Amino acid sequence: MSEPVRVGIVGLGTVGSGAYRLLADSAEHVARHAGRPVVVERVVVRDLHRPRAVAVPPGLLGTDIGAITRDRSISVVALLVGGLEPARSMMVALLESGKDVVTANKAVLAEHGPELFEVARRHGRSIAFEAAVAGGIPIVAAIGECLAANRIESIRGILNGTSNFILSRMEEEGADYAEVLRLAQDEGYAEADPAMDVDGTDATQKLALLTHLAFGTWVPWGQIPRRGIEGIDLDLMTTAREFGYRIRLLAIAARAPGTARVALRVAPTLVRIGTPLAETRGAFNAVSLVGDAVGKMFFHGLGAGQMPTASAVVADIIDTVVGRAAITFRTTAMLEPEGPADSLGAADLVERHLLRFLVADRPGVLARIAGCLGEQGISIAAVIQHEAETESGAVPLVIMTHRSPAAAVNAAVAAIDASDVVRGRSICLGVIDD
Amino acid sequence: MSEPVRVGIVGLGTVGSGAYRLLADSAEHVARHAGRPVVVERVVVRDLHRPRAVAVPPGLLGTDIGAITRDRSISVVALLVGGLEPARSMMVALLESGKDVVTANKAVLAEHGPELFEVARRHGRSIAFEAAVAGGIPIVAAIGECLAANRIESIRGILNGTSNFILSRMEEEGADYAEVLRLAQDEGYAEADPAMDVDGTDATQKLALLTHLAFGTWVPWGQIPRRGIEGIDLDLMTTAREFGYRIRLLAIAARAPGTARVALRVAPTLVRIGTPLAETRGAFNAVSLVGDAVGKMFFHGLGAGQMPTASAVVADIIDTVVGRAAITFRTTAMLEPEGPADSLGAADLVERHLLRFLVADRPGVLARIAGCLGEQGISIAAVIQHEAETESGAVPLVIMTHRSPAAAVNAAVAAIDASDVVRGRSICLGVIDD
Repeated sequence: MSEPVRVGIVGLGTVGSGAYRLLADSAEHVARHAGRPVVVERVVVRDLHRPRAVAVPPGLLGTDIGAITRDRSISVVALLVGGLEPARSMMVALLESGKDVVTANKAVLAEHGPELFEVARRHGRSIAFEAAVAGGIPIVAAIGECLAANRIESIRGILNGTSNFILSRMEEEGADYAEVLRLAQDEGYAEADPAMDVDGTDATQKLALLTHLAFGTWVPWGQIPRRGIEGIDLDLMTTAREFGYRIRLLAIAARAPGTARVALRVAPTLVRIGTPLAETRGAFNAVSLVGDAVGKMFFHGLGAGQMPTASAVVADIIDTVVGRAAITFRTTAMLEPEGPADSLGAADLVERHLLRFLVADRPGVLARIAGCLGEQGISIAAVIQHEAETESGAVPLVIMTHRSPAAAVNAAVAAIDASDVVRGRSICLGVIDD
Repeated sequence: MSEPVRVGIVGLGTVGSGAYRLLADSAEHVARHAGRPVVVERVVVRDLHRPRAVAVPPGLLGTDIGAITRDRSISVVALLVGGLEPARSMMVALLESGKDVVTANKAVLAEHGPELFEVARRHGRSIAFEAAVAGGIPIVAAIGECLAANRIESIRGILNGTSNFILSRMEEEGADYAEVLRLAQDEGYAEADPAMDVDGTDATQKLALLTHLAFGTWVPWGQIPRRGIEGIDLDLMTTAREFGYRIRLLAIAARAPGTARVALRVAPTLVRIGTPLAETRGAFNAVSLVGDAVGKMFFHGLGAGQMPTASAVVADIIDTVVGRAAITFRTTAMLEPEGPADSLGAADLVERHLLRFLVADRPGVLARIAGCLGEQGISIAAVIQHEAETESGAVPLVIMTHRSPAAAVNAAVAAIDASDVVRGRSICLGVIDD
């Protein structure tokens, strides 16, 4: 067997510890796949004295990334710190010093991807990021390599395990959002500050990366319309179930038929009970995609957590060692959109919508709302209005529309919200049947 | 963009026509991913005059594979003929003349894999075969590359679309095997001679290839215990459903816990309703696998058919053009089993079993059968015996066992079959709950 390859690890949090442990415990197995031993030469952490779950020989540990960038024996580095800085500067320093980089940090790629990819290109290095999207599910390789013969028509993903854990627990246990969030934090499925998970930021950053791979289009993640799960209540879930749906935080990228335009959105969405996305429960991730040749594909697995993510990190290290990552990075980086991506936005999506209004309990309200919808050319498939239970005089009015452009539905909802019949926050969710 | 790469296609049947069409219709898209144009230089068929669904310029068509092997401008060849010969000789000739090969032919690889891989190695060429297993589902790449950091613990696959079409239609329509087989043939989901599909041969050959990738073990497919779906009747399906299961033709490879031993089997198996494999319907394929790091993964997609298979063929052509296939082939070919694979066989599997006996309707029969099971240490979880409906005096007796080694169950069934209480063919199916 050839000479060992020496790797560095930056960051020894959950994922870093997992990657370190996997490289140590499965050393023989990894060597078999890499064609040579893979040896961790140096580990850089922020705080030397923090207690850790893995036993790293003290000689390997340090706090200075220069110990890696200056060490010419190290060729591959797993950058496993989160957030934007110092992750960005560290990645630049690693690439400039001639290291290939493997990372699980979706935020830094979604924010600074074009700059970082350009630095890598200039220095002839690669960035591999399977672990940054959907953890253990090999969706980056599937889209970037395995389905390369396909024009991707749509991607629908459950890309944030925390949100999915919360939504499916609310549904299964009839517990409300705040209660389940506390439970998720206790069980380690949600961070102490879960904002980036529940407000859709995490899923949106992952969607931006998948969009780049699938459509050759780099979309700044902040431009993707995004809604989180904070507004989802049990009543809405019950209503959804009455119509035959569950609510999932879906990341969607869909090509408008026959065009190069891609509609993007992250939002809670109704998915029909019995379909694979609706049956994705707990902290699992899932991706359903359609390619013009392959048809419909579905992937399901653990999207986060220590060892599933470490599995993807180590697979990327192996890919980098054998040379596949360099090739993939080169071809991926050359991708350009097929035609102008001139209109990116959820407004292009045409689908059914579930609308819920809190309205005054008096004559003429339904006529008024139906009128606003009609003006936008939206036809109504079903209406549910139960008798008022509250003293407030406000009653929930739920409407399922036929297929309509999101732009028209949004305009109608805005008109209704501006009228005097509405007593609270209106909700508008897309509906997916297949 | 670089010089075009010139490819040959051998065989212009369903898959060959699909690959030709995809390379032509998506030429620009393929070039983007391959980093250079991919041009079909020559197509070899058996019969020049057969009518075809794709229009190949007559100058490209020929019947002599020598036109490809002698053409030094052709570097990659898609070998898309089925069966063993002349596929085997053709592949050897192509490799010896310096061509990299892409193929969808699982039979020739399962039968002659070690020889063909050795020829490729000797000539520094690669063989890519994503299309040979589960069509459009990228399971070969997933196991061979993406999950390389994992020790695979188990693979369970629905790998034959024809069998799954028949089983799920029987169940949905309450129609019997022969009737649904005719329907499947009419609709193009089954060949005129469906023997290799319904007797489990096709799935077993695919399982042999996946076993090689996942466990580094080359098992001659003929040594894998194999049963087809011919014996499945509607009564058995109804009984399975009463217990909460559907019947699927499952290909299983499972590592005995803590050992290097791998148990292999292809057989109709009870899978619990609601689990993803049980909900895989029609001509779809699916693979559920467990890796020690990644946990449980599930893949679902079209496992056969013209364009899904062509999607995998063209992805492999792209992989070959960019150089990934050569790397993967080199690392895969070096795989060796982790420890001795000293005991391969379904007898190692420990699971629940559903047994159905046709027994004489007289006293003492249940005691006799329960006695045979008890002697093998098998305990009974449930028994169903409905009142006799036939004049024959034979009644079906159905037993669900607790978890027991397959070897013990087989021995008990053999003893029962040898006794004088049995009036017809006994059936024994494994049961999977998760």
